[in-house]
Amino acid sequence: MPRKIILDCDPGHDDAIAILLAHGNPEIELLAVTTVVGNQTLPKVTRNALAVARIAGITDVPFAAGADRPLVRPLENAPDIHGESGMDGPVLPEPAIALDDRHAIDLIIDLVMSHEPGEITLVPTGGLTNIALAARKEPRIVERVKEVVLMGGGYHVGNWSAVAEFNIKIDPEAAHIVFNESWPVVMVGLDLTHQALATPEVVERIAAIGTGPARFVEELLEFFGTTYKDAQGFDSPPVHDPCAVAYVIDPTIVRTVKVPIDIELTGTLTLGMTVADFRSPAPDDCSTWAATELDHARFWGLVTDALENIGEIEL
Amino acid sequence: MPRKIILDCDPGHDDAIAILLAHGNPEIELLAVTTVVGNQTLPKVTRNALAVARIAGITDVPFAAGADRPLVRPLENAPDIHGESGMDGPVLPEPAIALDDRHAIDLIIDLVMSHEPGEITLVPTGGLTNIALAARKEPRIVERVKEVVLMGGGYHVGNWSAVAEFNIKIDPEAAHIVFNESWPVVMVGLDLTHQALATPEVVERIAAIGTGPARFVEELLEFFGTTYKDAQGFDSPPVHDPCAVAYVIDPTIVRTVKVPIDIELTGTLTLGMTVADFRSPAPDDCSTWAATELDHARFWGLVTDALENIGEIEL
Amino acid sequence: MPRKIILDCDPGHDDAIAILLAHGNPEIELLAVTTVVGNQTLPKVTRNALAVARIAGITDVPFAAGADRPLVRPLENAPDIHGESGMDGPVLPEPAIALDDRHAIDLIIDLVMSHEPGEITLVPTGGLTNIALAARKEPRIVERVKEVVLMGGGYHVGNWSAVAEFNIKIDPEAAHIVFNESWPVVMVGLDLTHQALATPEVVERIAAIGTGPARFVEELLEFFGTTYKDAQGFDSPPVHDPCAVAYVIDPTIVRTVKVPIDIELTGTLTLGMTVADFRSPAPDDCSTWAATELDHARFWGLVTDALENIGEIEL
Amino acid sequence: MPRKIILDCDPGHDDAIAILLAHGNPEIELLAVTTVVGNQTLPKVTRNALAVARIAGITDVPFAAGADRPLVRPLENAPDIHGESGMDGPVLPEPAIALDDRHAIDLIIDLVMSHEPGEITLVPTGGLTNIALAARKEPRIVERVKEVVLMGGGYHVGNWSAVAEFNIKIDPEAAHIVFNESWPVVMVGLDLTHQALATPEVVERIAAIGTGPARFVEELLEFFGTTYKDAQGFDSPPVHDPCAVAYVIDPTIVRTVKVPIDIELTGTLTLGMTVADFRSPAPDDCSTWAATELDHARFWGLVTDALENIGEIEL
Repeated sequence: MPRKIILDCDPGHDDAIAILLAHGNPEIELLAVTTVVGNQTLPKVTRNALAVARIAGITDVPFAAGADRPLVRPLENAPDIHGESGMDGPVLPEPAIALDDRHAIDLIIDLVMSHEPGEITLVPTGGLTNIALAARKEPRIVERVKEVVLMGGGYHVGNWSAVAEFNIKIDPEAAHIVFNESWPVVMVGLDLTHQALATPEVVERIAAIGTGPARFVEELLEFFGTTYKDAQGFDSPPVHDPCAVAYVIDPTIVRTVKVPIDIELTGTLTLGMTVADFRSPAPDDCSTWAATELDHARFWGLVTDALENIGEIEL
Repeated sequence: MPRKIILDCDPGHDDAIAILLAHGNPEIELLAVTTVVGNQTLPKVTRNALAVARIAGITDVPFAAGADRPLVRPLENAPDIHGESGMDGPVLPEPAIALDDRHAIDLIIDLVMSHEPGEITLVPTGGLTNIALAARKEPRIVERVKEVVLMGGGYHVGNWSAVAEFNIKIDPEAAHIVFNESWPVVMVGLDLTHQALATPEVVERIAAIGTGPARFVEELLEFFGTTYKDAQGFDSPPVHDPCAVAYVIDPTIVRTVKVPIDIELTGTLTLGMTVADFRSPAPDDCSTWAATELDHARFWGLVTDALENIGEIEL
Repeated sequence: MPRKIILDCDPGHDDAIAILLAHGNPEIELLAVTTVVGNQTLPKVTRNALAVARIAGITDVPFAAGADRPLVRPLENAPDIHGESGMDGPVLPEPAIALDDRHAIDLIIDLVMSHEPGEITLVPTGGLTNIALAARKEPRIVERVKEVVLMGGGYHVGNWSAVAEFNIKIDPEAAHIVFNESWPVVMVGLDLTHQALATPEVVERIAAIGTGPARFVEELLEFFGTTYKDAQGFDSPPVHDPCAVAYVIDPTIVRTVKVPIDIELTGTLTLGMTVADFRSPAPDDCSTWAATELDHARFWGLVTDALENIGEIEL
Repeated sequence: MPRKIILDCDPGHDDAIAILLAHGNPEIELLAVTTVVGNQTLPKVTRNALAVARIAGITDVPFAAGADRPLVRPLENAPDIHGESGMDGPVLPEPAIALDDRHAIDLIIDLVMSHEPGEITLVPTGGLTNIALAARKEPRIVERVKEVVLMGGGYHVGNWSAVAEFNIKIDPEAAHIVFNESWPVVMVGLDLTHQALATPEVVERIAAIGTGPARFVEELLEFFGTTYKDAQGFDSPPVHDPCAVAYVIDPTIVRTVKVPIDIELTGTLTLGMTVADFRSPAPDDCSTWAATELDHARFWGLVTDALENIGEIEL
C-alpha cells in the first residue's frame, strides 16, 4: 500500500525534484502539495509549485497556498541560491491547474482529520510555518499524523549561520512547535543532504532520460550547481528535499538515529540550531530522529526511476 | 453608529464583566465572542463564556472557541486568581446557546473580511494567541481592522513577573506578532487597570441594581476581591478587562499616550515585558498607544449603566 | 566621624562635581579616587580626574586608573553627552599630582582590607567594571565594605535604551556581579537623578560663589546643559553623580526604598535593565535599595556649600 | 629551547597528569602553576595542586591560587567525575611547598610582563576565570603571550550540556573574553580529548614504570575510569588536560584547524557552546584553532616518557 503524504514546500530547485520524486514513485500517494514562504515569497513559490505540476503532468492533486511570512521573525528568502524567481534556470510554463481555495493549513487539517489515524505522513521541505499553524489550530492532528519527515536542520552542519540551517532558522518558533509536539519527527538535515550531491554522473544519467521533465531537472541542477558553487563552494550541489521523500519511500536508504532534538530560540550565535543530545541513549519518550547516512546510489536511482515513470509530458 | 467589536477573551471574572459591559452598552455592537486559553483551560473558559451569555441574555451573537495553548510556550493558567473553574464564585447556569462551529480564528477572519475596512475593532482581553494566529493565517485582516484595543501588558507594572503581565507573558510570541503588525494597538495595561478598583462603594452600587446579572457581578467581585487580596495584597480588586471595552465606548475615559511598544522575547528576567520607549516623542510611524489614566467614576458608571440596560434576565 | 569613601568614576561632567562635593564636604573623607572607562576612554577620564584634583586643590588623595574596557561587551563611550575629551567645556589645567602606581582594583582592595569592616563605602559613578573585578579578585572585600552607593540604573527610566541606563548597560555583567553580591547596594538611578536638575537658579547660585572651582562647575554645567538639551531634550541638565555622594553625606536628602533589583543579561530590548520587583514587600535577605525622591534644595545646598568650603584654589 | 608555559588548572585527575607531563618533559619549562575553581572548590584544587607538586618532586616552581568563583554565574563543580576531594582515588601527601603569596592573576601578569613578547604560552585546563581576569586587569599581556592553548570546549561534542563542555560552561563569560582577544587561541576540546582514552594497555604501560609518581597516575586513572564509566558510559576514560600540554610539546601530535570560534552567552540550550564556523575557509584575521585529531600512541608515549624522566620521588 503506498504511503500517503502531504508535501509542504517552497519550490525551490530541490523542492521541485521532491515533487517529481513523490509523483513518480509508486510507493507514494501524493495527497496534496502545500506551499509556504521560504526560498522565495509565497506568490513565487506557489507559482513555481503549479509550474512543476504542469511539467510533471500532475492534475488530480490539490495545491494550496499557506503562510506568507514566518510566525515571529521578519521574512528571509534565499535568492543567492534559488534566484529571483525562486526556481531560476528552466523556462517555466504557465500553470494548468488552479489553486485549491482552502488555506494550506485547512487543507492539511481536513486531510488529516478525514483519514484514519496513522495514515498520513507530513513531508515539509521548507520552513515549518504551515505545519506549526496547523498543529496550533487543530491540535488533534498531532495524534493522527503518522510522522513528520522534514528536510531541515542538522546536528553538526549549518548553512544559514555557523550552526543553523535555512528552513529552521527562518522560522525557529515554528520549528520549536513542530519538534516539541508528540508526533514522530524525522529530521533529514544537512548532515544527510550534503551527501545527496548531484555529481556530473548523476546529471548525465538524468539527461540521458531525454524527456521534458528530465530536461527540466537537468536545467534545475545546472543552475543549482552554479549558485551552490558560488555561494558555498560546493563542487556538486546537495539536493536536499527529495531526501525526505526518499526516506518515506524506503527508510533503508536514509539511515537515522533516535536522539532528542530541540530548537534554540534565544541564542545569539545559535538561534535556530537543532540541538541534538548524543550524550546518552535516547530516553523512551523521545520522538525525534536524525538522519545520518545516505545510500547515494539508491537515492539517485529513486529519482531517475521516478522520472522514467513520469515519462514524457505534453505541455 | 455603534462600534462593532469582536471580544476575544478567557473568562475569567473581569472578562465576564467585559462581556456584560459590551452587551449592555448601546455604543457597542458585539459581533462575536471568541475564547482563548489563559485564565483557565480552553474548555473551562469557553464554558464560562457561554454561561455569561445565558446570564446576560445574549442569544444572537456567535461564540467560538480558539487556541487551547500558547504558540510556543507551555500552558500557564491562573487558578490562584480565578479559581479552578476559571470563574469561581457564582453558581454558573448551563449554557443555552451552542458554540459556532468555526474555529475562533476563522470566525474573526470571516467577520473582518466581510465587513468594510475600518469597521471592526478587536478587543482581546486574554493571551493574544487567537489574534496572532488569525493575522498569520489571513494577513489581509491587519489592514481591515480598525484597531486592536487589548487588555494586557504595562509599562511600569508587572504581575506575572517583576515587569511582565499575565496575558502577555503566557504567550509572548503572540504578543510580539500583534504589537509588530501595522494595525493600531492600544495597550490597556496594568498601569491603567490597577486604577479600575472595585471599591466597596462600587460593589454596593452594583448590588443595589438588584437584578440577576448584577448579583452575578457582585458575586464575581466578591471572589475576585478575596483572591486579589490573598495573592497580590490589593484592598479592592483591579477589574482589568472592561477597561478595554470602556476605551472603545469612550476614549475620554481612558487617557492614552502614543509610544513605541515592543515585546521582549529573550530576557531572563524580562520575558514578555511590554517595553515602551518614552525617551523621545513617538515617531510618525508609531502605531502603538499605552493607556495611562482612568476616569474611575465614569468607568464604573458605564458598568452600572450596562447592567441597568441589561435588566432582569429569566434563567 | 566623617564617612570614608572611595569614589570610582569616569569624569565626566557630573563625576567632576561628585569629586568636588566629596572633597568639599566635611562629612566625607575621600580615601581614593579610581577611574574606569565609561563616559570616555580610560586615558581621557583619568586625565580629567587628575585635572579636577588640581582645580579642587586635592593633593593628598591617591588617584589610580582601572579597567580600560568592560568585562565582556565592546567599548561604548558617550561623546554626545560629554564631548570628545569626556569633560568638554572648561579649559583643563595640567595635572599636578601623579597617579598611584597600583591598579585601581588593587588600591580598592588594599584600602578595604586595611580598614575595619564596615568603615568604607564604595561610591561608583561609572560602569561597575572596577568594582566587579575587585570583588572577584578579593572576595573578602564584600564582607568588609559598608555599602555600595552607586549612580546607575533606574527602575522606570532608561537613557541608553528604552529601559537601561548608560553605566549599567555598558558593562551589564559587571553590574550583575555587584548587584548579586551580599553587600548592601543603594542604586541612585535615573528615577532620582532626573530630579537633580541644574536649573538656571542653581547655576546662578554657583556662579555667584566667584571662585575658580565654582567657575569650573559653571562651565561644566553650561556644556552639559547644551548636550542634554540636544541629545535628550532636557531644559536643564540632570546632574547624576553627586547624588550618590549626597546620599552618603545625608540619607534624608535621597529617599530610598528596599526592593529586590537584578540585572538583565540576555534581553534583546532590555539588556542591562535594572529589574526592580515592587510586587511585594522586599524579603528579609534583600540587600538592594532604589533611590526614589530627591530634596532638590538641600542637594544643591550641599554642592554650593562644598564649593564654598573649597574656596579659591591657586592654579 | 624549551617552551615556557604557565599551567592554569583545577586538579582534577587529568590536571594532575598535565602537571606531571609538563614537569617531566624536557621541551617544557614550567614557569608557574596557578589554580582556579572548577572541578572542585578553590581550596580543594589548590591543595591538590600542591600535593601533585610533592608527588612529582616539583620544588622550584611558584604555585598560586586564583579565582574562587566564576565571573558571573553561580559556582558549579564536578564531584561526579572527580569525587569530593576533586582528586579522589590516591592517598594525597601533605604539601611540601608553600603557595606564592601573589594572586594567580598577578603572578600571570608579572611573569608575562617580565618576559619577552612571544615567550610564554598560557595553558589553561580549567575554567577561564583567571585568564580572563588577568587580561582585563593588564590588557598588555594579550600582545605578549605567545598563545593560549586551552583544554575546553568542543565543536561537535558536549559533556556539561548537549553542546557545551564543562570548563567553558562553568564560566562562559570568561571564555568569551579569552576567545575574543587577539592572542592565538588553540582550543583542545572534547572532539580531540575523547580520543585520549586511557585504555587498559595504556594503564598497564604506566603501571609497569613502577615508581611512586607512576603509581599515583595509575590510581588516578583507576578512579577516573570508574566515574567516567558511571557518569558518561565511557569504557576507558578520556584524559583531557595533558592533551593541551602535548600540543605545546609537539603540535604534530595534535592536529588543528584554523576556524573562527566564539562563545554563546545567551542560548537556552546552547549556553557556553564554543561555536565554530566551518562554512568557509577561516578569514585572515582569525586567531582561533580547533584541535581535531590525536596521535594516540605518541601522546601516551609523551606521558610515559615524562613519568620515566621524573623517576622515583622520595616522599
